[in-house]
Amino acid sequence: MTSDSFVLKGNICWSTSQTEVACEEGVCAVCVGGTCAGVWDAADLPDAYAGLPVVDCGDALVIPGMNDIHVHAPQYAFRGIGMDRELIEWLNTYTFPEEARYRDLTYAERAYSIFADDLRRSPTCRAVVFGTIHVPATRLLMDKLEATGLVSYVGKVNMDRNAPLSLVETSGASAAATRRWLDDVAGRYERTRPILTPRFTPSVTDGLMKDLGWIREEFDVPVQSHLSENLSEVAWVRELCPWASCYGAAYDRFGLLGPHTVMAHCVYSSDEEMGLLRRTGTYVAHCPQSNAQLASGIAPVRRYLDEGLSVGLGTDVAGGASLSMWRAMSDAVAASKLRWRFVDQELAPLTWQEALWLATVGGGSFFGFVGKFEEGYDFDALVVDDSALRAPRELSVPERLERCVHLGSEGARLVRKFVAGREIDLA
Amino acid sequence: MTSDSFVLKGNICWSTSQTEVACEEGVCAVCVGGTCAGVWDAADLPDAYAGLPVVDCGDALVIPGMNDIHVHAPQYAFRGIGMDRELIEWLNTYTFPEEARYRDLTYAERAYSIFADDLRRSPTCRAVVFGTIHVPATRLLMDKLEATGLVSYVGKVNMDRNAPLSLVETSGASAAATRRWLDDVAGRYERTRPILTPRFTPSVTDGLMKDLGWIREEFDVPVQSHLSENLSEVAWVRELCPWASCYGAAYDRFGLLGPHTVMAHCVYSSDEEMGLLRRTGTYVAHCPQSNAQLASGIAPVRRYLDEGLSVGLGTDVAGGASLSMWRAMSDAVAASKLRWRFVDQELAPLTWQEALWLATVGGGSFFGFVGKFEEGYDFDALVVDDSALRAPRELSVPERLERCVHLGSEGARLVRKFVAGREIDLA
Repeated sequence: MTSDSFVLKGNICWSTSQTEVACEEGVCAVCVGGTCAGVWDAADLPDAYAGLPVVDCGDALVIPGMNDIHVHAPQYAFRGIGMDRELIEWLNTYTFPEEARYRDLTYAERAYSIFADDLRRSPTCRAVVFGTIHVPATRLLMDKLEATGLVSYVGKVNMDRNAPLSLVETSGASAAATRRWLDDVAGRYERTRPILTPRFTPSVTDGLMKDLGWIREEFDVPVQSHLSENLSEVAWVRELCPWASCYGAAYDRFGLLGPHTVMAHCVYSSDEEMGLLRRTGTYVAHCPQSNAQLASGIAPVRRYLDEGLSVGLGTDVAGGASLSMWRAMSDAVAASKLRWRFVDQELAPLTWQEALWLATVGGGSFFGFVGKFEEGYDFDALVVDDSALRAPRELSVPERLERCVHLGSEGARLVRKFVAGREIDLA
Repeated sequence: MTSDSFVLKGNICWSTSQTEVACEEGVCAVCVGGTCAGVWDAADLPDAYAGLPVVDCGDALVIPGMNDIHVHAPQYAFRGIGMDRELIEWLNTYTFPEEARYRDLTYAERAYSIFADDLRRSPTCRAVVFGTIHVPATRLLMDKLEATGLVSYVGKVNMDRNAPLSLVETSGASAAATRRWLDDVAGRYERTRPILTPRFTPSVTDGLMKDLGWIREEFDVPVQSHLSENLSEVAWVRELCPWASCYGAAYDRFGLLGPHTVMAHCVYSSDEEMGLLRRTGTYVAHCPQSNAQLASGIAPVRRYLDEGLSVGLGTDVAGGASLSMWRAMSDAVAASKLRWRFVDQELAPLTWQEALWLATVGGGSFFGFVGKFEEGYDFDALVVDDSALRAPRELSVPERLERCVHLGSEGARLVRKFVAGREIDLA
């Protein structure tokens, strides 16, 4: 497709609410100038769209693009390796030494090419991405992601304490580099935006956090960080910021929470912290695979949803091994069942429909009107061939979609992918 | 390969103990008449093997075949669908209606062709398989599995209570059909053996269980069933068999435990039951994905290993959605970390090496000398191309293998597969 106005004809499926998925067979989803105009039966297609090119998706499933709202690009290099520690030890043993390599642009070129290629071919249409402290490598990552056609927020990481020498900045230099980076990338990309990225409270002094709060206001940029992932981390923050009534308050004090902020994990958020996240409209990135593999725990996603927090899914590569949002959905459902079993039977497990909602609408709303085939939404779409997931009897479209949620990472083939109406090259 | 004597040259990796994996690069694993003769450096290859054909596996990983010691063939039809109930409701809502279809041989032919095809192309070399109560369909399943070249135990299920009319047998008819089936299949297959399959205590009266104990002795066949999977199930067995001091005793009383028995799950085994499993040498099939998706819980595998029980892995399709033993390994590691977090910090999480051991040697030993590249072991081997799991720097062979344990189901390509020296067609 070279035009950004067209019709996708097929089995169009999307979340009409947090709990309901519409599955309309053989209908037409209309994209006009990159935006969805709506879904119609072929016979009812308004005249205005009758002349648009039609992409016939046959019996494939057509679903909204997925949105990975927490992923570390430099950690993709060691995904699936070194999954034998808890958070702080894991950072010191595997993550920081890997991230230090990105000072070398040759290495970054090799690594980020692989990351961008694999993300492009994955079901992810939009992503919120950590880089490293290195501005040149982060610029390179932004170039690579821009070239994929995906939409992303990318962050140069800030760290001015508790990091190895190879990866620590002075507070002033960190703030200054961030300002220069923001100046430099302003207006440079169509689909790639900078995002402020204090790694997490243990890595960032109050002084730098305060500077970042000013930068946020000055440049009007969104923010991403980590929050209440691991018990030792939470205890450490209590020592580092004795003035903060909860971990979240250590960000809020500097104006770093809000509807344009993503906080990853929130496994151990207190009632107070949940209230803070709700009041500020801060997004929670739920990362079930990472939270299992780093033995962190399981976030109470049901409670966050019930209380009206904004929640999406993250793969959190390389705390999570898999870049697949199919796998993130499957893991989110499984983890919620184990949490129900072990922690709190008041909180019902997530359904597959809710997992799909989280992966599409939940995280998508961080980017605007994203995640549905409804009028005014950006036209992000995946055409999914699930024919390798064979069955001896005919399955309904909802059954096929449910199966993809659980088995898509190993059995579904992505045949076409559109982001805001632009087709992504899957080769 | 048409010969069953040959040399595989490549990166040969296998578990030398429960915790240690040998990874020898560019060496030769020798297969003579289907049995492993050992592993040598090319330069040290004994003269006796110098004339054997050499399969050069290049840079691929060569690992032992995997053994799925608990899988339900008829449930493969609805894998990944209907994962929203606990065990008993799930059986009544989804499983029993599906299994009732296998009275129809046309349906069974379609369904079991898909199951056998997909198992053949998977990393599984040997499997312990549930059928349904239907003898003709179970015979058909045995034919299909025999044709794959894999080694399997296959069971006609026994159920004489608490099942829908379409799926329940009278006690006498169940025992008689089992005898006829065992007579009929005796000596009929090279690689496929019958296994006694009382579904689980709630489905089988004491009277039929007693008959099965006799049949077991008379025919000298192994046994598979379910044990202590779910809290309601355990409570129900307490009501059904008030005479049994633990659930396991309800099998043991009829002579159904022992070194040729696999009991699936054992999530809630009491100390007494663990003692019984150990004393009898009964195998535990650990099925982490199923235990999460049916909200059953997490089995204390570390404890079983520490106490010297025999343990292997099962996919338990369709309690588990995925037939992939890669996924079973990854889930076993993740589940053990969550159990450590939520239940018992005395029990260390499983390592990837231990997951590999469970998938190869742990379950393999149920079939004899299976699961290692050591002298006298059956030569089961997988040649795994992991080149799609790209990295920006050279990874060691152990790192590549660890990554496959976590990401094999979505990123590793099986290029050759051998079972007892016989090459399996992967087309």
